[in-house]
This record gives sequence, C-alpha cells and structure tokens, in this order.
Amino acid sequence: MSPDPDAFAALLCDWCLEAREGDQVLVAATAPSMPLALAVHGALLERGAWPLMRLSAAALAESFYRHAKDAQLDGFAPLELVEAQKADAFLTITAPTNTRALAAVDPALIARVGRARSPIQEARLAARWCGTLWPTAAAAQEAGMSEADYAAFVTRALFLDRPDPVQAWQELTELQARLVGRLAVAREIRIEAPDTDLRLRVDGRTWINSDGKHNMPSGEVFTGPLEDSANGTIRFTIPSSPSGVQVADIRLTFSEGRVVEASAERGDEYLQAALRTDSGARFLGELGIGTNVGIDRPTGSILLDEKMAGTVHLALGRSYPITGGTNQSALHWDMICDLRDGGRLTVDGETLPLTGR
Amino acid sequence: MSPDPDAFAALLCDWCLEAREGDQVLVAATAPSMPLALAVHGALLERGAWPLMRLSAAALAESFYRHAKDAQLDGFAPLELVEAQKADAFLTITAPTNTRALAAVDPALIARVGRARSPIQEARLAARWCGTLWPTAAAAQEAGMSEADYAAFVTRALFLDRPDPVQAWQELTELQARLVGRLAVAREIRIEAPDTDLRLRVDGRTWINSDGKHNMPSGEVFTGPLEDSANGTIRFTIPSSPSGVQVADIRLTFSEGRVVEASAERGDEYLQAALRTDSGARFLGELGIGTNVGIDRPTGSILLDEKMAGTVHLALGRSYPITGGTNQSALHWDMICDLRDGGRLTVDGETLPLTGR
Repeated sequence: MSPDPDAFAALLCDWCLEAREGDQVLVAATAPSMPLALAVHGALLERGAWPLMRLSAAALAESFYRHAKDAQLDGFAPLELVEAQKADAFLTITAPTNTRALAAVDPALIARVGRARSPIQEARLAARWCGTLWPTAAAAQEAGMSEADYAAFVTRALFLDRPDPVQAWQELTELQARLVGRLAVAREIRIEAPDTDLRLRVDGRTWINSDGKHNMPSGEVFTGPLEDSANGTIRFTIPSSPSGVQVADIRLTFSEGRVVEASAERGDEYLQAALRTDSGARFLGELGIGTNVGIDRPTGSILLDEKMAGTVHLALGRSYPITGGTNQSALHWDMICDLRDGGRLTVDGETLPLTGR
Repeated sequence: MSPDPDAFAALLCDWCLEAREGDQVLVAATAPSMPLALAVHGALLERGAWPLMRLSAAALAESFYRHAKDAQLDGFAPLELVEAQKADAFLTITAPTNTRALAAVDPALIARVGRARSPIQEARLAARWCGTLWPTAAAAQEAGMSEADYAAFVTRALFLDRPDPVQAWQELTELQARLVGRLAVAREIRIEAPDTDLRLRVDGRTWINSDGKHNMPSGEVFTGPLEDSANGTIRFTIPSSPSGVQVADIRLTFSEGRVVEASAERGDEYLQAALRTDSGARFLGELGIGTNVGIDRPTGSILLDEKMAGTVHLALGRSYPITGGTNQSALHWDMICDLRDGGRLTVDGETLPLTGR
C-alpha cells in the first residue's frame, strides 16, 4: 500500500522541482525513505540532473542540539552556505522513526539556531525547493492509523491514486487560481461553525495559490488578514499543537484583531504561554483555506492537516510578507477549524463553495 | 554484540580523522549504519567540527550506472568538486544491505566513471580520509557467519574489545614501524607455504605503515616489489575475488616478474580474462604483510582479509607510486597467501616473525 516510489519521484521531479538537464539537486533523505530517495535519484539522472544525496534524520537534529557548542549553535559550516547558494533545487523527504524526537529540545534553542542559519535558509528559499514525506510506522502511529491505512491515505493526499498525478495537480492549481481570483476582490470573510462566528478583513491583501511546488502534498490558498480586523469567536476542533505538545479544542475570542479570551480543553497552560511570546502573538498572521480532497482526516501533521478540504486555518503570530501581512512574531501557530459539519465560509455575504462538497 | 558506536566514533574522530575544531568533515553513511553515523555526528560536534552528512548506498551506485547518461558518466556535479576541495576530512562508512548490488555492472563502465571522477578522488586523497564499515546481516552472510558472531569479529578487528582502542592502534603503529625499519634494508623476500616457493626483490622500494588512518580496521605494511623480480610459484588458498565473482584457489608461476602459468580451481576463465587486461596485468604491483591479530579468518571483504595476521598478499597489476613501484595497469587484484599453517616469510635468508605468533 506504500505510494509507488517511481510515480512519486516523477511527480516530485516534474511538478515540484521542475528538474532540468544540468541541475544540481540536493536531496535530503532519512533512512526509512530510502525507496523514495532511490527513485528520486534515478528520476533526476534520467532528466539529466545531478542528484546530491544528503542524510537527514530527526535524531541527527536532536544530536545537534545536544552536542553543539556556542560556535556551532551560532554559525554554520561554510560549505553549507556554498551548496545553498549554488544548488538549483532542494528536496527534503521527511520519514520519521519517532515524531517526538525533538520533544525535549528548548524552543528558544531551536529559534537561536534558526536565526544563525537564516543566510542558508534564505539562499535555499530563493531557489526551487520542496518538502515532502514518506510514510513510516511512526507517522502512522502519530496519525492513529495502521501502516497500510496510513500509506493509502498518503497516496491519496499526493494524488498518486489518480491516473495522471501531474495532471491532477495541474487541475488543483487551476481550481485554486479561480478561488484566488474570487478572493482577490474580497473584503470581509466570515467563518461560521459550531461555537464559531468570526469576521475578519482581507481587502488589499494577496492570496497565494499553494499548489504543491513547495509542499507535496499541498492544496490551500492563504493570505494574511488585516491585523486589526478579527472580531468574534472561533473554536478549533482539530488538534494542531506543536510537535511533542498536546493542545486540543482551543477557543479564541478576538476584538479588533487581538485575542482577548483564550482557552484550551487540553494544554491550556501551553496556549497561554504561547500567547505571551511577544506582542504579535495575540494577532493573526494567516488565514488559509484547505482544498485537498485526498486529505479527509487530521493525522497529527500540520503539513497535511491544514490542507484538508472543508477546513479553514488561522495562524497566530508571524505573517508571510508575500501576502501583504505585516504582523511580526516569533510565533506562527496554525489552528484548524472544521467546516465540514455545518460550518461555512462567507465572502462579503456570499457563501464560498468548499472544495470537495 | 554490535561495536559500541560511541567508542567506534571516538576512534574514528581521534585516531583516523584527527578531527579538530572548525574542521568540515564529510561523512558518507548508508542507512543501516545510522547508529554509527549518529555517534560520529555527535563526536564531531563535541570536538568543535562540522559534520556534513551524506547518504550513500550500493543501491544508489547501481542506480547511477543504470540511469546515468553520457554527460553524467563522463563528468560530475560542480558542487562535488567544491566539497572535495574545501572539506578537511572525509569518512565513508560501508554497511551493505547486499554485497552483490553491483554484480551486473560492467567493469568497463565502473572504470569510465572512475576516470571522469578522478579530480574529485585526487582532491579527497589530498585531505584526511578514512573508509570503515558497520556490520550488517548482508556482510555477515558474505562472511558465512551469524550476525552476532560477525559483529563480535568486527569489534575485535577494530580493537574495540581493547580497554583503550586508540592506544592499541598506537601500539600497532609502533610494531609496524619496527617492521618497516627491518624491511627498509631488505633485498630479497622469499615466501614459502604448501605449493608455494616464491622469491622477489624489494631493494630501493618504500614500505608503507598502514595503521588505520585511511582504512579502519587496517594493519599491514606494504610495498611495490621490483617489477622483473618475481620467480617461483605461489598458491592463494584464501578467496579474494572481485565483488560478485567467485574465484578460488589461484596458483601462479612467475618468471622474471611475469606470470607464465596461472590457474584457478574456481573461476579460471575470469582469472585468464583478468590477466589479459593489459600488459601490466601479468606483473606484481604490491606485496603486503597483514598484522591485525583481531582478524583471524577471511570474511569475503578484501579490506579486512588482506590485514589478517599471518598472511601475505600480492596484487597483480597497478602499483602505488608512493612505494616506488612503477607497474601500470587497470587491474589491481589482491590475492592472499596464508602462512599460518606451515608457511614462512624470509627476508634475505632470515625468517620474519609474523605478528600474532
């Protein structure tokens, strides 16, 4: 029931990375993703590109945080920047053996290392890049599913169950382009669902068509709402807590963009601490609408959960400048509201048809 | 029964690579070697070095030969040369999942790729470098041993069963230095064993102390004999055939350095073809003496077999210029003669005490 590695590799090379002759493509793979890594390696060669294989693992990241000294936490190897600047495309294949490997790492340390490595990150983001996943027992466990069921789920999320996956992603792009066209002229968004009635404004902001070029699977359109515009209450029934933390059933009340009431049925203490991160943490940085009909349930991975058709997600904290959003924060916490059971999203008074309905 | 990854990593960092603060160290690891790769990663960080993790696998190599086009067979990615020139040290960890993965690859294709990649190879050899192995089920199978027995064998071969492995390698270096001192003034070497009486000359040649800086485990001293000096007959009872090929019980007769008679009980056809490689293939390129007492049996890996204490090996074909040897050939085939059962090695008429006796 695993995704077909060759079809998956073709999708990554042709749709996500647009691999061309002579490209130097960095492929960061974990040990369990070997079947896909091998297929990508062969597919890149077939396209005349140079696969440059890198070994990654959450255990290596955890080891870094445990062993690194100040010079290593606050710097990087010169060769890492060289390859970030010279390579044409970057693929990262996640395939966890333990989704909680980084549970005990201090988030402040992760942020510190992130700051130090920002020149590398910036160079990579300026090229073609994509992050994807290969199903493992650990990921299935996180999702609460058998390995066979999880592998079949991932196959559907990637559209690898379709006769022509690249064509299926092309069709999703076009569908999302129409959605973006409709939303580009939107002024007010209203989200209604059980225990939820929230209004916010998006006029003047840019909607992004996230169609699998950077995340595979993807399937969302998103923007940054006007920072002072959110008013009302929303309940997030789908857990979307940071790795290793349990936060569930969050309820937020906004007044003029700011969170004025917040509670969580589980992990309330963590939620309150997150809201105290900085002044931007109580404001919204993102509003996204999931469109991927292959993703029909939450599986504990935000990469997939936020793409679920019939859901909308809001992020507390940092906005993406590309959207026109201006909120700044060290926090970016996506929270997912399920509209599939009696909810709706209204654009300037008109109900938006949700993908998959 | 696996080697202790932390002790192994310390040996690799401190003895083989001499890792220092600020070093950029390329670590090429296969998926099954993850326990050692992780330990090396941590040990390098502890020493202030930058571990740069690379994913390797025989399956990736096989995939390369299967998919690569002419431009890829005859070139390399520019970033590969950059990292070969800029990195301070290189570690390659072998851990096969299938020792016969390359069985069907045309040796001519391997040679072609080797020629194209020689600038990379030269740059790497100019830095610190080491190749080592992590025990796997496939390597145990090749050795004809259980996984537990093979892991214990590898542990002994690495001197990781000793209280202080670095000290043990230091002692072997000193023992080999005395051996090199004795052999530096040698003129004629005579090898005697069942069905074996061979004489060759080594005067003017340089003996190399191979003490684990480049191969871990190592344990041999070697030189290039005078090309026209070998006379007599030798029988190699230890199989040492190229990967994927079965050649056993080779007998060679030399006259004035040249092989004039050759036969093998198994794989004779392959042997005869190898001798026809080129004009240098019928002459010796190397004479080596194994000293590693932790290696007490052949296991189908030339890296280990040729280091076995109580054995001597001769290579048909290419000599290492560092020894003063001048024989040139595309062939370099090490063949091992066991002296442990009634054999001896005589230096200008004096029997050389063999390590481990």
